[in-house]
Amino acid sequence: ARCRARKMEDYGRFLALLASSLLVGFVSVILSLVWVFHYREGLSWDGSPAEFNWHPVLIITGFVFIQGIAIIVYRLPWTWKCSKLLMKFIHAGLNTIAMILAIVSMVAVFDFHNAKNIPNMYSLHSWIGLTAVIFYSLQLFLGFAVFLLPFAPVRLRVALMPIHVYSGLAIFATVIATALMGITEKLIFALKNPAYSASPPEATLVNCLGLLLVIFGSLILWMASRPHWKRPPAENAKILRPIGATPEGTEVESTMTNSSNADKSDLRSNTEAARKQNIKFDEAGQRSTM
Amino acid sequence: ARCRARKMEDYGRFLALLASSLLVGFVSVILSLVWVFHYREGLSWDGSPAEFNWHPVLIITGFVFIQGIAIIVYRLPWTWKCSKLLMKFIHAGLNTIAMILAIVSMVAVFDFHNAKNIPNMYSLHSWIGLTAVIFYSLQLFLGFAVFLLPFAPVRLRVALMPIHVYSGLAIFATVIATALMGITEKLIFALKNPAYSASPPEATLVNCLGLLLVIFGSLILWMASRPHWKRPPAENAKILRPIGATPEGTEVESTMTNSSNADKSDLRSNTEAARKQNIKFDEAGQRSTM
Repeated sequence: ARCRARKMEDYGRFLALLASSLLVGFVSVILSLVWVFHYREGLSWDGSPAEFNWHPVLIITGFVFIQGIAIIVYRLPWTWKCSKLLMKFIHAGLNTIAMILAIVSMVAVFDFHNAKNIPNMYSLHSWIGLTAVIFYSLQLFLGFAVFLLPFAPVRLRVALMPIHVYSGLAIFATVIATALMGITEKLIFALKNPAYSASPPEATLVNCLGLLLVIFGSLILWMASRPHWKRPPAENAKILRPIGATPEGTEVESTMTNSSNADKSDLRSNTEAARKQNIKFDEAGQRSTM
Repeated sequence: ARCRARKMEDYGRFLALLASSLLVGFVSVILSLVWVFHYREGLSWDGSPAEFNWHPVLIITGFVFIQGIAIIVYRLPWTWKCSKLLMKFIHAGLNTIAMILAIVSMVAVFDFHNAKNIPNMYSLHSWIGLTAVIFYSLQLFLGFAVFLLPFAPVRLRVALMPIHVYSGLAIFATVIATALMGITEKLIFALKNPAYSASPPEATLVNCLGLLLVIFGSLILWMASRPHWKRPPAENAKILRPIGATPEGTEVESTMTNSSNADKSDLRSNTEAARKQNIKFDEAGQRSTM
């Protein structure tokens, strides 16, 4: 009963963090729209600054908010009864949407620059941003080929999963850093009389937007890196796999988590842990892994 | 023998990454000096732009490079024979040096701004940068009080260690993001005729510096987040602690790592794993934990 109470408390903590990150992400999208419609030229597709404005709106909506959700989608406890394959499609689908929005938002900038004869790709923002989009596309393609299509052997999946997870989180953090550079550039270029340094209301609003992006990123990365919030491994995979082998990368770390409380030098406590774990899986019902 | 060969290969991989990150960090410091001495006004402390120049040099040297080393210092395999207490002093000492350099570098900017009547604290760079310095100082103070001083109970250390690790890595990533914003600001403000958008050599050099900071951060965060490169837990702590309890936060995850290859549903393989682990500890010799 005490264990169950602790689990409920932990579940509540996850929900609170999830709600906070959804709120912070949602407010960020709203602030980007307020920025663009209240302080700037709105949105259009005509080579004017209003075309440029698609860039911050689509980056914050797609490349930050939707990518953030895609990262933690496996960790939503109510999806653990869904098949792993379905969750992979949702993960890949959200990331595909984010990639498309990021590419459209880049086209908007190139189009605007070309219409106004502003050089492309001179800033650190553009260098790192383009690199992030290229790595993101590669990540999506490789993830699809290795983890979604049924051809890659288990050994390859196990070897690549930690790299997939790390590079996903690193790209996400880099995207937020790039957004902060973009905000800095835009406020310096757009605010003249009063300048950025005079702290007009627009500057304060957009600085707050930047802070929210950092908070959103921190919340997502915290949720994504807690081992005890991982999707539990499937029962059949646990039973059928050979000794010492793990069926898939995601399961590797789950196994680590589950065993962290069991002292391996004590056999009795270990069998106890294994028995409890099996009960937990029975409760949760059969789950499939790809 | 095969296991030993795999270990040596893994050790070699760690050394290669360590050498790469040291090289990238070192080149970043050199590039910041080339920027300041070859393209800018050099270094001095007289309210001139040469005083401002301490800001990028000290941030990159202290707040990026030294902080990065401080993060991975426990993971250097040749320190595993040193006492944990000594390593904690080195970790805290390097972070203290980084904090002092970061504060001096901020004083340089305020001093320069005040001498030139430029407003302080208006940019997103300054907001996030100051927040990072405050959180970094808090992290250092709390880390000292909880993990270095001998007063905090084990239960508190175990509860706070994951937060300490996460916030340390998050602050490090935020510092690099802030450095990228600072580079963006400085290049826009300093480069007139030719402007930043004309890509003069200085712009290309400093953009490359920004890219190197991202690579340095990625390498450090990769090394810091691989469970199998953690400092092994101390032998006595393993034997003396009560069943199900862990002596300290750092040991919690090490235990996870060591057990990841052992299948808990199979008792024989488990005792085997425990036996091998004890042999490993015997080889490594006695280690103390605080």
